[in-house]
Amino acid sequence: VFLVVGLGSMESLKRLFYPHSVAVIGASDNPFKMGYHCLRSLIGFRGAVYPVNPNASTIQGFKAYPSILDVPGDVDLAVIVVPARQVPPVIEECAGKGVKGAVIITAGFRETGEIGASLQEEVVSIAKRAGMRILGPNTFGFVNTHAGLNATFTETLGELEKGDIAVVTQSGGVCHLFCYEAITQGLGVSKAVGLGNRCDVDFPEMLDYLASDEETRVIALHIEGLDNPREFMEAAKRTVKVKPVVAYKVGRAEVNRESMSHTGSMAGDYRLYDALFKQSGVVDVGSVVELLDVAKALSFLPPPRGGRVAVVSVQAGPAIIISDVCKSNGLTLPEFTEETRRRIESLLPPMTIRSNPVDLAFAYSVETFMEVIRLVADDSNVDVVVVFQLHHPVAPVMVDELVGVFRESGKPFLFCFNAPRSRSREEVERLEKGGIPVYPTPERVARAVVGLVKYGRVLRKPL
Amino acid sequence: VFLVVGLGSMESLKRLFYPHSVAVIGASDNPFKMGYHCLRSLIGFRGAVYPVNPNASTIQGFKAYPSILDVPGDVDLAVIVVPARQVPPVIEECAGKGVKGAVIITAGFRETGEIGASLQEEVVSIAKRAGMRILGPNTFGFVNTHAGLNATFTETLGELEKGDIAVVTQSGGVCHLFCYEAITQGLGVSKAVGLGNRCDVDFPEMLDYLASDEETRVIALHIEGLDNPREFMEAAKRTVKVKPVVAYKVGRAEVNRESMSHTGSMAGDYRLYDALFKQSGVVDVGSVVELLDVAKALSFLPPPRGGRVAVVSVQAGPAIIISDVCKSNGLTLPEFTEETRRRIESLLPPMTIRSNPVDLAFAYSVETFMEVIRLVADDSNVDVVVVFQLHHPVAPVMVDELVGVFRESGKPFLFCFNAPRSRSREEVERLEKGGIPVYPTPERVARAVVGLVKYGRVLRKPL
Repeated sequence: VFLVVGLGSMESLKRLFYPHSVAVIGASDNPFKMGYHCLRSLIGFRGAVYPVNPNASTIQGFKAYPSILDVPGDVDLAVIVVPARQVPPVIEECAGKGVKGAVIITAGFRETGEIGASLQEEVVSIAKRAGMRILGPNTFGFVNTHAGLNATFTETLGELEKGDIAVVTQSGGVCHLFCYEAITQGLGVSKAVGLGNRCDVDFPEMLDYLASDEETRVIALHIEGLDNPREFMEAAKRTVKVKPVVAYKVGRAEVNRESMSHTGSMAGDYRLYDALFKQSGVVDVGSVVELLDVAKALSFLPPPRGGRVAVVSVQAGPAIIISDVCKSNGLTLPEFTEETRRRIESLLPPMTIRSNPVDLAFAYSVETFMEVIRLVADDSNVDVVVVFQLHHPVAPVMVDELVGVFRESGKPFLFCFNAPRSRSREEVERLEKGGIPVYPTPERVARAVVGLVKYGRVLRKPL
Repeated sequence: VFLVVGLGSMESLKRLFYPHSVAVIGASDNPFKMGYHCLRSLIGFRGAVYPVNPNASTIQGFKAYPSILDVPGDVDLAVIVVPARQVPPVIEECAGKGVKGAVIITAGFRETGEIGASLQEEVVSIAKRAGMRILGPNTFGFVNTHAGLNATFTETLGELEKGDIAVVTQSGGVCHLFCYEAITQGLGVSKAVGLGNRCDVDFPEMLDYLASDEETRVIALHIEGLDNPREFMEAAKRTVKVKPVVAYKVGRAEVNRESMSHTGSMAGDYRLYDALFKQSGVVDVGSVVELLDVAKALSFLPPPRGGRVAVVSVQAGPAIIISDVCKSNGLTLPEFTEETRRRIESLLPPMTIRSNPVDLAFAYSVETFMEVIRLVADDSNVDVVVVFQLHHPVAPVMVDELVGVFRESGKPFLFCFNAPRSRSREEVERLEKGGIPVYPTPERVARAVVGLVKYGRVLRKPL
C-alpha cells in the first residue's frame, strides 16, 4: 500500500473506480485477444474510451492511438493488456500522461517466479513515484455498476444490475461465479473487483474504501491468502461497525501450494483465519454460493436481535432440514409463547405440527398460512421468520399480505420456495420486490439465516 | 414388513410400482382437494383409471364409481385420499376387491398420537390379512417414469424424465425438491418414492427391491430416522455390491423432536448413522442437492479406481476450491508422472500453473486445453479428471473431442461449467449427452467426485 489509510487513499481509490475516461492499452480487433474483449466491455460506458494500439487507426469503431501519450484528453483509468515485459514501459507512459489509476490484466508477474516478481516491483516503483493506483496485475479487472463501467475482459459482466453488494475476490474465476449467479438471480451488485496479485490495492484498504462507499451496503470477500493478517483485522474491525463483511476463505485442507502460485500469496492455516474472522467480526461462509446467499440476506434485511428462528412450512421434511442446519450452527428454534401456542392450536388440526417448526401440511390454505405467519412474527420469543413453501403457487395477494406482515413486524423474513426453475422466476421476483429474499433450498435459506444472525451478534458485541 | 425378504416381497412391490389399473379413492372435481390433483396426475397413464366417489358419476371426464367394489375391472393400485377415519373401511373394501397395493396419501395416523396410531394399526392388520402392500400413510405417493405413472398429488412430477436414479425419501417435500431439481436439470429418474409413515414398505425392503430393479442403477435416500437400523444395514450391505446407495441423513444437530412427530420415527444420534453408513458402504451426503449431484455422478460414470484427482482449469481460483474440497475429504491431487510434466511444460508457458491443478489461464485455446486433458487422462497417477471452464463457450467440436478422450481413457470425467443460467443450458446438454456430467460450481463438482470415489472404495473393500 502506497499511502496510509486516510483521505488520500480513499480519494485515489474513488478516482480508480469512478473514472471519467478509460484507455485500453493493447486494444484489438481480433476476438481471440484479451484486448478485443476489454474494449467491447466498455461499449455503453458514458465517459471517453480510448483504444491504444500502434498498429491500428480505428478499433471496433473507436479512433485508436499509437500510445497513451497521443490521446488528446485526460485519461483517468488505463486498462492494460499488453504482454508482461511491456507493462513497465507502458506504466511509465501512463505516469507521463498523468493517468490516475491502472488495471493490469496481464499475468506473468510475482505468481510466476523471480523474473515476474522483479517486473512487478518495477511497476510498483513507477506507479508509486507517480501516485498512480494499480489494481492487479493478473486480475480480470472490476465492474462498477453505478458508474456504468465494466473494466474487465468479460462483456457478460455488463449485465450485472445495480445493487448494494460489493464483491472483492482474489480470483477472477471466483468473481465470475459470484457475478453469474447474481445475474441469474437478478441480484444487484455495487462493485465486483478482482484483486489479482495485489501489488498495490489489497484487502485492508478495500475494506476501508467500501466502508465509506455510499453505494455499498454489504461487503463479500473471497480470500485465498493474506499478506498482512493484522492489517486486515484492524480494517475489518473498523468496517463491520458500519456494514457487514462476509468472507469465504479457501484452503481448509492444508497449506495450498496452488494458491501460493496463483496470486503469489501464502494461504496459511485455516484455523488462524477462523480465529481472525471471529475476532474481527467477519461472517465466514463455506462456498461461493453461500457467500452470495449470506450477502443477499444482509443486503435485504436488518440483522435480527437474536438467534431465535421460527419456521413456518407447508412441508415437514424441508422444515426439519432448516431446523437442523440452524441448530447445528448455534441458533435455536424456540418454543412459542403460551398465547401463540394457543392460537395456533385453535387454527390447525392435530395432524399438523403446531410447535416450531410449524407444518401446516394438508391443512394449508393461504388464509391459515398467513394467520400462522402473523402469529409467529408477533411472538416475543421469535427474532427471525423463515417461510417454506413448495408446489403451491405464491399468489400476488399472498405476497402483498406477507410483505405487510414483514414490514409491520420489523423482523427479518426469509422465504424458501422451489419449483422447476422455469416456473418459479416470476413468483421469486414478486417476493423480492417486496423486500423478502428468496432461496431455493432449505439448506441455503438456513445458512443465510445463520449469516444474518452472526452479523447481528457482531453488532451487539461490546467493544 | 409383512413378508420375509425374498421372491414374494419383491413380486408384491413390483406389482405395487407397476400396476395395470389405478383407482383414486376420494377423487374430486374440486381443485382445492387432494383428490382432484391425484386424479389429474394420472392423466396420460396408459392403464385403466377409476375415480371413486359416491357423490359423482363422472370426474374430470372419467366415469366415476360410488365404491371400489363397483369398479368393473381388476384394480391393481388404489390411491387413497379420504379422511383418516374412513381409511380402514376403504382398505377393507380394497381387500374385498382384491386390490394388490395401496398408496395412502391421507395423514393423521401414527404421527399425530394415540388415536392415529390405532387407526394405522387397523390399516396394517387388514392389509396384512389380505396380502395387500401399503405405501404410507402420510405420503405424497410415488412416480414410476418407466411405467408412465405419476401416483402423487403433484401433476408437475409427471414432467420427470426417464432415467436410472431411484430416490426414496421419508418426506414428500424433500422428494419434491429432489425431483424439481432433476426436472430443471433434465436429469432422469427411475422411481421417486415417498415412504411416509412406513407402516409397511420401509427402507430395508426398498433397498432389496431397487437392487433387483433393472431400471434403477443408483439409489438415493433421504432418511430422518430408522426403526430398525440393523435390518437397514444388512439390506444396504447386500445392495451396495450391486449398485451404489447414497444417503442424506437429516438431524445432525441433536435428536430432533420434529422428525419424530413428522413421520413418527426417532431421528437418533447422527454419529450412529455415520458409523452405520460407513459399515454398510452407503455414501453419505450433506444436502438434498448433494444427494442429487452424487447420484448423478454415479449414474453417469463408473467409479474410479482410486482417489487421485486431476483438475484442468482455465481459472485458478475455482480449481483451488475443487482441490481444497477434494483434499478436505480424503482425496489427493497427485503429482503427474515425469512424462506428463515434461509434456505439459512444453505446452504451457511459465505464467500458467503446470502442476496439478493445471491452470491454463491466458494460454487457453481449445487445442491446448484438449491436449492437456488428454495428457492427464492418460497419466497413470490419475484416477478421475475434473475439467473447469468459465466464460469460454464450450464449442460442439470440443464436446466431441472431450467425449472421445473420456471414452478412450476409461476414467471418469466431470465437468464444471458456469454462465448466466439462460445461456449455459445448451452447452450443458451437449456435454451430458456425451456422458460427462456437468456441475455449476467448484464445490458441487468436487463433492460429486468425493461421492464417486467413496463408492469406488466400497466396491474395492474386501468382504
